Amino acid sequence: MQAQQILLDSRPEGLPTHDNFKLSSLLLPEVQEGEFLVKNLWMSVDPYMRGRMIDRKSYIAPFSIGEVLEGGAIGEVIESRNSDFPVGVKVTSMLGWRSHYVTDGSDHTKLPETPLSESHFLGVLGMPGMTAWAGLNRIAELKEGETLFVSAASGAVGSVACQLGKLMGAKVIASVGSDEKAVNLKSLGVDAVINYKTAENLSAALKEAAPQGVDVYFENVGGEHLSAALDNMNDHGRIAVCGMISQYNDTAPTPGPSNLAMIIMKKLRMEGFIVFEHWAHYPEFAKAMGQWLATGAVKAEQTIYEGLASAPDAFIGLFEGKNRGKMVVKLT
Amino acid sequence: MQAQQILLDSRPEGLPTHDNFKLSSLLLPEVQEGEFLVKNLWMSVDPYMRGRMIDRKSYIAPFSIGEVLEGGAIGEVIESRNSDFPVGVKVTSMLGWRSHYVTDGSDHTKLPETPLSESHFLGVLGMPGMTAWAGLNRIAELKEGETLFVSAASGAVGSVACQLGKLMGAKVIASVGSDEKAVNLKSLGVDAVINYKTAENLSAALKEAAPQGVDVYFENVGGEHLSAALDNMNDHGRIAVCGMISQYNDTAPTPGPSNLAMIIMKKLRMEGFIVFEHWAHYPEFAKAMGQWLATGAVKAEQTIYEGLASAPDAFIGLFEGKNRGKMVVKLT
Repeated sequence: MQAQQILLDSRPEGLPTHDNFKLSSLLLPEVQEGEFLVKNLWMSVDPYMRGRMIDRKSYIAPFSIGEVLEGGAIGEVIESRNSDFPVGVKVTSMLGWRSHYVTDGSDHTKLPETPLSESHFLGVLGMPGMTAWAGLNRIAELKEGETLFVSAASGAVGSVACQLGKLMGAKVIASVGSDEKAVNLKSLGVDAVINYKTAENLSAALKEAAPQGVDVYFENVGGEHLSAALDNMNDHGRIAVCGMISQYNDTAPTPGPSNLAMIIMKKLRMEGFIVFEHWAHYPEFAKAMGQWLATGAVKAEQTIYEGLASAPDAFIGLFEGKNRGKMVVKLT
Repeated sequence: MQAQQILLDSRPEGLPTHDNFKLSSLLLPEVQEGEFLVKNLWMSVDPYMRGRMIDRKSYIAPFSIGEVLEGGAIGEVIESRNSDFPVGVKVTSMLGWRSHYVTDGSDHTKLPETPLSESHFLGVLGMPGMTAWAGLNRIAELKEGETLFVSAASGAVGSVACQLGKLMGAKVIASVGSDEKAVNLKSLGVDAVINYKTAENLSAALKEAAPQGVDVYFENVGGEHLSAALDNMNDHGRIAVCGMISQYNDTAPTPGPSNLAMIIMKKLRMEGFIVFEHWAHYPEFAKAMGQWLATGAVKAEQTIYEGLASAPDAFIGLFEGKNRGKMVVKLT
């Protein structure tokens, strides 16, 4: 059986291009005893993958040149010699960027029954949704009546963070990169939305949107967004540092904010986190999120690209703001 | 009775100069019922006072032009119509930068009996010592066996942080600005000392001194020091942000470190604090510190300038690294 897969062909410098990716095919081995064959249905593209394209030590090993990329995926078992994973079962894995693969099932989880599209297990019910939940609950400890500022608020993590912020009783201020995204977030109940691309001065715009100050900043962007947040934080504010997407494609070091001393003056806590370290809480999160989705309290947004060959476009699109909600690729 | 006092004559731009200060005299009022007259014996100069010379909103109100400066002081009651503060009692107050004053005793504390010089209540037994203790215990939560990096390690706070770090069972790496200070810190038991003025690359020097990485950074300096610490922090490291003295005299915004994203990759917690918010723990701290001083486990270091007129020099000297341990002015 021939599988299609996408390799890292070269390390990107700056914004990734098609030249960094290569579509290739591979003859899969026969399914042995204890193994099964998976046909991927959906794959995820996420900003953190950009970091794995750099050859450096980090919390997760870098991708190797000439090897197939990895990332979250949802697949279906189509041939099996493993009784735990019979034909027809749907699984999540980290083996995205390929059409099919043979596995012994390690690091695979069976999907629970759900009335939703399975693709949401890559988004609002998966890693990005859990990231928003963990950042607000376990890092920032957002409280009712506080003001929450979320950057990249239309993204997979940000759009969930905004909606959870409202459910937790916070006033929510969001930053996005287009007026269309702003209108959409308003429809999700966000109190005020800043289009950072048209705002003359982000710090002033945030001050106008949150004259009472910001108690929690959910940091996805870095740079000017962090600086604006520091300017507007209240005493004892918390900054949950989830990502700094504005810097992922930098080819030279970008200076940090010049107002970092606000951390002292305002007695702020700024804390970075990686969702995988909070995974023990996934059942608690999934139960709550399942109910919110069922009642419509949280709306699951996604942007879908079609076909494995479109995966590089989908990935590059993350840095161009082309997604609203979770960016996923449907493998057909 | 004529008192001598030092006023803020103009706001400094960059490093303060003598022109920013003015020595003047004042005719004190008669002591009324309930009041007493204090002769100051010692006054404190501290880096945080530089912040109060800027006209801006902060955790403490700015000094006003033409008004007498304020800061920690130790004085003796020399005339009294207040039975709580009889003649001969020694008091701490925030009414430094003056030779004498009349008060009703609000915000005054009587000094406990001590075999040490009273001046140490401005240093190791006072605000700077408590700052080091609170930063390590209540913010960074330093644990036995961890590695602690302290910047401005020869200063009033830093030298105590280094010594407490050793008492808490940590490996302690210090950064100072002269070889003489380095030798002195070594004699206090610090494991490795970096002279940041002669180090070619601070991050590399820190890596050499702490090949096992840094678990806790006690931040007094900002800028390149913070950057070097971020490079060398271990996963789940903590940065207790006490001060950023390298920036206090900046006339233009200084960019922050370009490697702030380490906060995510290493899941760091960076937290600013102001010692006054931890003052409820002062008795706990003072009891422990009193014992450490009595047994010689902590050495109280100070640099003494003589006479009220030398106070501006003492203050300016803080930013030129002229102190070893606590900088105090003896009023004669």
